[in-house]
Formats: sequence, structure tokens, C-alpha cells
Amino acid sequence: MTEKVVIIGGGAAGPKTAAKLRREKEDIDIDLYTQEDIISYSACGLPYFIENIIQDIDTLIVRTPEDFEKQNIHIHLKQRCIKVNTDEKTVLMLDLNTNTEYTVEYDFLVIATGAIPVMPDIKNINLKNIFTLRTIQDGINIKQKMFQSQNAVLIGGGYISIELLEALVHNNLHVTLIEKEKQILKMFDEDFAERIRDYIIGRNPGQVSILTNENVIDFQGNDKGEVTKVITESGKEIIADFVILGTGVRPNTDFLQGSDIKLGVKNSIRVGNTLRTSKCGIYAAGDCVDNYNLVTNKYTWVPMGSTANKEGRCAAINIAGGSCTFDGILNSTITKYFNLTISIIGISYKEALSYGFQPEFAIVTKRDKAGYMPDSGMMTLKLIADRNTHAILGIQGIGEGDVTKRVNTVIPAILSKTKLETFMNLDLPYSPPYSPAIDPVLNAAQIIYQKING
Amino acid sequence: MTEKVVIIGGGAAGPKTAAKLRREKEDIDIDLYTQEDIISYSACGLPYFIENIIQDIDTLIVRTPEDFEKQNIHIHLKQRCIKVNTDEKTVLMLDLNTNTEYTVEYDFLVIATGAIPVMPDIKNINLKNIFTLRTIQDGINIKQKMFQSQNAVLIGGGYISIELLEALVHNNLHVTLIEKEKQILKMFDEDFAERIRDYIIGRNPGQVSILTNENVIDFQGNDKGEVTKVITESGKEIIADFVILGTGVRPNTDFLQGSDIKLGVKNSIRVGNTLRTSKCGIYAAGDCVDNYNLVTNKYTWVPMGSTANKEGRCAAINIAGGSCTFDGILNSTITKYFNLTISIIGISYKEALSYGFQPEFAIVTKRDKAGYMPDSGMMTLKLIADRNTHAILGIQGIGEGDVTKRVNTVIPAILSKTKLETFMNLDLPYSPPYSPAIDPVLNAAQIIYQKING
Repeated sequence: MTEKVVIIGGGAAGPKTAAKLRREKEDIDIDLYTQEDIISYSACGLPYFIENIIQDIDTLIVRTPEDFEKQNIHIHLKQRCIKVNTDEKTVLMLDLNTNTEYTVEYDFLVIATGAIPVMPDIKNINLKNIFTLRTIQDGINIKQKMFQSQNAVLIGGGYISIELLEALVHNNLHVTLIEKEKQILKMFDEDFAERIRDYIIGRNPGQVSILTNENVIDFQGNDKGEVTKVITESGKEIIADFVILGTGVRPNTDFLQGSDIKLGVKNSIRVGNTLRTSKCGIYAAGDCVDNYNLVTNKYTWVPMGSTANKEGRCAAINIAGGSCTFDGILNSTITKYFNLTISIIGISYKEALSYGFQPEFAIVTKRDKAGYMPDSGMMTLKLIADRNTHAILGIQGIGEGDVTKRVNTVIPAILSKTKLETFMNLDLPYSPPYSPAIDPVLNAAQIIYQKING
Repeated sequence: MTEKVVIIGGGAAGPKTAAKLRREKEDIDIDLYTQEDIISYSACGLPYFIENIIQDIDTLIVRTPEDFEKQNIHIHLKQRCIKVNTDEKTVLMLDLNTNTEYTVEYDFLVIATGAIPVMPDIKNINLKNIFTLRTIQDGINIKQKMFQSQNAVLIGGGYISIELLEALVHNNLHVTLIEKEKQILKMFDEDFAERIRDYIIGRNPGQVSILTNENVIDFQGNDKGEVTKVITESGKEIIADFVILGTGVRPNTDFLQGSDIKLGVKNSIRVGNTLRTSKCGIYAAGDCVDNYNLVTNKYTWVPMGSTANKEGRCAAINIAGGSCTFDGILNSTITKYFNLTISIIGISYKEALSYGFQPEFAIVTKRDKAGYMPDSGMMTLKLIADRNTHAILGIQGIGEGDVTKRVNTVIPAILSKTKLETFMNLDLPYSPPYSPAIDPVLNAAQIIYQKING
């Protein structure tokens, strides 16, 4: 009898699992269920759709249900999983069109239900024009409203808010970003968060406000039930034609409460490096699973489209009978604010301290090319290494220069625990249009090494 | 008595050694001798000076003799070393101003005499307007001639010729590049050399000719003794207002013939990983020393400004009594031809075969960003790994997209012998403006891994 694979979730990991599994194995039934009315799209592209750098929303669609059908993969839209019965090997589904429940059997189950926004505890949060950004429809709604608006408020100071800030500033809105912690982008050390904040404010003085240490406690609306003002605990009242909540996401795993599938950090699904859950035959991938951090050797939860794709691919290979391991992550993230690249890899200095390392750091501000090349750009790197082992623990990079090459160069070195003294003499290719004779990232390693031995 | 350090050579390694040594140690005499009338300049920037992207030659000067004098480093211009007497710890110098010889004593000697052009065996090579490009004066002479010319011939198909080709094409000259081997850029596999050639020809059809398998045997001149034609073995006659010889360089070590300092590949100076030569108290750094290749574990000779800087720094630390090792290189090189980035790291497929590896490869042509980002660029990567060990051996990359980030990402992985199966799931930071969800360099690793296990 042909084996039956049921995949729950239509974001990145589910469709990737389905597509890869079909390439690996022809004689297997693949059914993918999603509660949305669309599948296989790049949620990470939504800020650029809103910004209107991308005009056509369809360009964010990786594959349509018809594309999948051609590969003999059956897509079931608007179907929500409400329970997994691991003993009977069935899932209880809810048809959102008809509101009726039904049962589906599986030999292999792949849970790829992603993440959902965390709704903060703020009064009147159900007013109109208070958005979250997770789905295609969210993106369409926000963009439509943006074109009719002058004032927007972003709540939360994470990457998504920075990307939306660019989108809104680019479209000439006045924007206030409100963060309840003392810094935006809390994964960064405070000095770097401050530099980023200064860049943002300095680029459009008067158009952008960033409030930190501010807690939003209330929204006020008009008689149409539309938000008009955002009220903070300290008494600030900010005019808003609309609000976007960037207050974080959490694993979409509520339907697993009471099941015997082991959960991990923040109720994400605990998977081993084969992407198998605690139950035989059940795999999970993407934003709903936890991640092993290869620097701290602790489990963490970092939802990320690139990880979701790798995990989906890996789960598919294993379901097909092959062998693939996904050992973990390095908390690598990147975004941009207009020309400013913003990236952090591994752990920050403050995290390194909290994890019991004995960190040392170097900050270098240098040009990305030979100084005499007319189009060189500046960048600032902060490299962190451990005094005991000389291993590199992380890097933070910001700048209009080519930051991304430097942070990428560090990644395999973090993974393989390359020592500073080896890394600082790394043979990076040199030519004036690409770097100074000694690359800034190597300078940073030299400086830490001298600090440690000095 | 204060120790006396004598440095021979004023390019990159010599000045770097002097500057770093002074920072490490105050109570030491430092004297630097060079046969040129200028020191501490970026020879790698000369093609961009000729192209006129850089107008002022002084911007290529890193430090002037006056800068050094302020640091109590004494610069002696137009002084050539003609012999080293290791028993007496002296060098015999020739003053090029007065043509008189004299002797200088040292406690530490640093040889950093760089490389000099190889002059090919071609008739009438002493005609006027046949240039090599090594010194600042060469750059000034070529640029001056370029502005008065319409037709130029470049002999040799290495990086320097590609960079000069850009310079000349940008200034509207008709250029013929002649290479005696069957491909340009011989460090690349033939398929990649062919792609690069196609790009160059396709960018300016009719303006650029590239002749391979052509041997130049003769130059013809006018009655002023100026070159007018280049004659090849196959009978081609190419009109030339000037010619630039890019037929390679060799270590500038003729003055060491007969000394007891051990020489290595191509008569470069053999140094260990401390940059010490076979003789106690004598160090060498830069283009005149050989290099240990960390992929093949064989000595090689790859002159490179970045290596020269690292070696000079390392030699200085060791002379000052510290401890620094420079373990070797990965043959990392990069250049550009207008918007096309051209890079190779480690070894090519053909080299891998010749060194007894069992290489497998993958070629991927992909966009450098998410496909829906409007400013994404294409690139082609060729990744090479060993079937036995799964270690990555090298990467070749070309494209208008961001090639340089991808090749750099591979470098620490080559060094640490990271296996394909680990590398292919590397946590590279993802965001649509910076890469597709799975980076092309990881795709390439996935493909090789599947080829090996398939």
C-alpha cells in the first residue's frame, strides 16, 4: 500500500518538504493542508511589497496549488488542524469553509504550522486599522491603508518594525516606533542598537520618532471604530491613522496541547537533528520547531525562513528513507534600513557574558574597499571572542559599506571554532574594489588577539 | 647597544614590517632601503589610476618617507641591495644616485624585495611604448600614452591584463589581448575562463579582441623607435600604439644567488610560518617569499598584496620578540571586469585532479537576492569538493551579482575542512535584499553532496 504523508502548514517549510519529498520519492501520497487560502509564499518579502518596491503580490508566490498538483501533491486550502492523535495516526481537521470536522490518516506527519503574532495586552486592541503582518492578506491591507495615511505607529522594535519603518518612510509617512525595552533590536549590544537608532533618526529628522522605555497601554478610536491615537504609560498620546503590532511571534502549536508530542522552548516542537519529533513517524519543520544554538549549545527558538527551508528539505530526505541532519543554528540575522545593512551572527557581548563565556571584543570602523576607491563605503564591525578558547563567538555589523560579506566570512569560523590567531591571517581575496589589503574583519580579530595577549 | 633592523624593499611588506615593528618596540633602529624613489604604495591600485577612476596618483601612497621619519623609521630611496653576507651580518648596497657601493650592518634583516616582471623572449622588445606595470612611474607612463592612443595590445591573459583591459576599454581604446595558452586566466577551469571571455567580448563587441593560443614573436616599430605592430607566430599583425606586457612576474631575489639563504619555488625565499628564512636573524615577507598552500599542503608562489601585509605584520611581531605565525594561503584571488566579479579560492577542478584528489563539482547559476527583489543580479558558482573526505577544495565565482560574499563564506570552511553535509546547512543570515532563502553557495554544496551519495 502506498505510504501516506500528511503535511500541515503552507508557509515555507511545508511546501518545501512536499516539493523535496516528491523529488526524492515518486510512489508516496503527499497531502498538504493549510488554514490559509494561499500557500508557498515569501512572508519575508511583504515589507518590500508594502514599500511598493514590489508592485505585484503574485511575485511573492513561490509555487501555486496548480504547480503542486502537477507534481501530484494535493493542496487543501482553508483546512485547520485541531488535534493530532499519535496512537491512531490521525489528525482531526476543521474545514474552515463549512466549519465541519473530519479525520485524516497518515503514515508520516509533518507539522509545519509556523508562528503566529503575539497580541500584547493593550486596551481597545480590536479597533480597526491595528494590524499585524504575517500573511499576504495582512500585507495587502497594510499597503492599502498606508496609501491613504499620513501618520503611523509601529509597536515593537524588532527587525520587522525596522523593515516596515523603511516602507512607511519611503512612502512619506510620519512614523513613531515605540519599544518597551530600553533599546530597539534587543539581540544587539546596546552600543550597536544606539548607532542604528542614530542612523534612522538622522536620515529623516522630524519624520521618524523612536520611543524606547515606553509601554503602550491604550488605543483610542473614532466613532467608526478606527484607531486614532496611541496612549503610552508615561502619558504620551501619538496620532495614528493606523498601527502595526510588531510585538513578536510565537510557535503556532496550540493544537498540540494535550498531545504526547514533546514541546520545547516557548512551546515550539522539540525536534532532533533529523527533524523527527518525540513520536515515531512525526516530523516537524520551520517556525514551529525549536533550534539548537551551536554557540551556546542550548535550545532556542528563532523563526527564520532560511532555516525553515533547510529543515523542510532535510525532513523530506529523512522521510524518503535517506539521511540528512540539521545540527543547529548560529542565530544569524540580517536586515537593512535603506542603505544601512544591519546584521548579527552568533551571540552579542552581553549574551556571551550571560552564558558564562569570558568575552573580549573589538570594534572597527573602516572602509569596505581600498580607501582610494571612489565608491567605498563605511562600516562598523564588533567582533566577539572568548578569552579562554580564542574561539569567535559572534559578530555585529552595520554600515552602508559591504557588511554582509564580512559577517558571512565569520560564520564557518564560528561553527568550526577557528581560533582568532588562525582567523586573523585568513586568506581573503584582495583587490582594491573589494577590500582594503587587510580586510576589516581580520583587523578586528587582530585587535582582540592583541587585547587577550597584551 | 640598540638593535639594528635593516629592511630591504619599499612596496607593501617592507613598510608594513617597519610600521608594525615600531608600534611593537620603541628602542630599536629601523632603516628601510628601496631601489625605487617612492615607498609604501598600493601597486594593486595602479589599473584604477590608469582607468582614471583615481585621478591623483598620490592617493595610492599609503605613507610618505616623512610619515616614517616621524616614527623614527629611516627611509633610504634609490638604494639597491646587491648582496647579503650572512656570516658578517652585512648587506652590500648600491647607491643608484652615485653608483657607489657601501656596506650596512644589521642585527635583523628583513628581505621584502617583491617581484619583478618576467620579460618574454620577443624580438624588438626594447622598442618604445612597450610597458610593464609594476611601479608608480609605469602607471604614470601608461596613462599618459593611453590618452594619446587608439589601439593597444595586452600580452598575457592574467588578472593584471583583465584590469588593464577595463581601463583601456573605459577610455575608448580598441584593445587586443593575446594569450599563448588555450585559455585566459589559467587558474580557472576552462569552462569558467570561457564564460569570462564571453562576457568581455559581449560587453564591447568590435572594441575588444581576445586571441588565445597565439604566441607573440616580434614587434615592429617606426623610425622613431616606437612600436607600431605586434606580430604573432601564426602570422597575425596587430596595430598597436602601445603594448603592455602582462606576462607574469618572478621573485626579485637575483641578489641572493650564491648566498646561503635557502630559496624555494621559482627562486622565492623559503620561509617557515614565522617568516624566518633558513638563516637566524633574517626574515623575509611579501612577494619575494614562497607560500604554503593549505589545500594542497605544498609550497607555491602567489604574490599578493594582502599576503604581503599579513606577512610583514607577522615578521615584525616576531622580530620584536612576540609570537605570530602565518600558516599559509588558499590561493584566494579576486578581480573585476566592469560589473563582473571574478574570483577563485582554493583549487580548481583540474588542479584537484592533478593533486590526486577525487573531486566532484556543482555549478549553480542563481540570483544573489530573493528573485522578486528588483535589483537582484545573476552569478555562477562552481564549488569543488573531495569525494573521499567531503571537504570543500575550492570555489570559482563570476557574475554581476554579489559573488564575493559567497566565495568569502567558503574560505574558513576550506581552511577548517568543514564537510559538505555540515556546510550545506550553514546558518547564513537571510533577508530578501541579501539572498534567496537558501543561499546559492549552499545549493551548490547540496548538489555535490547528492552527487556523491546519489
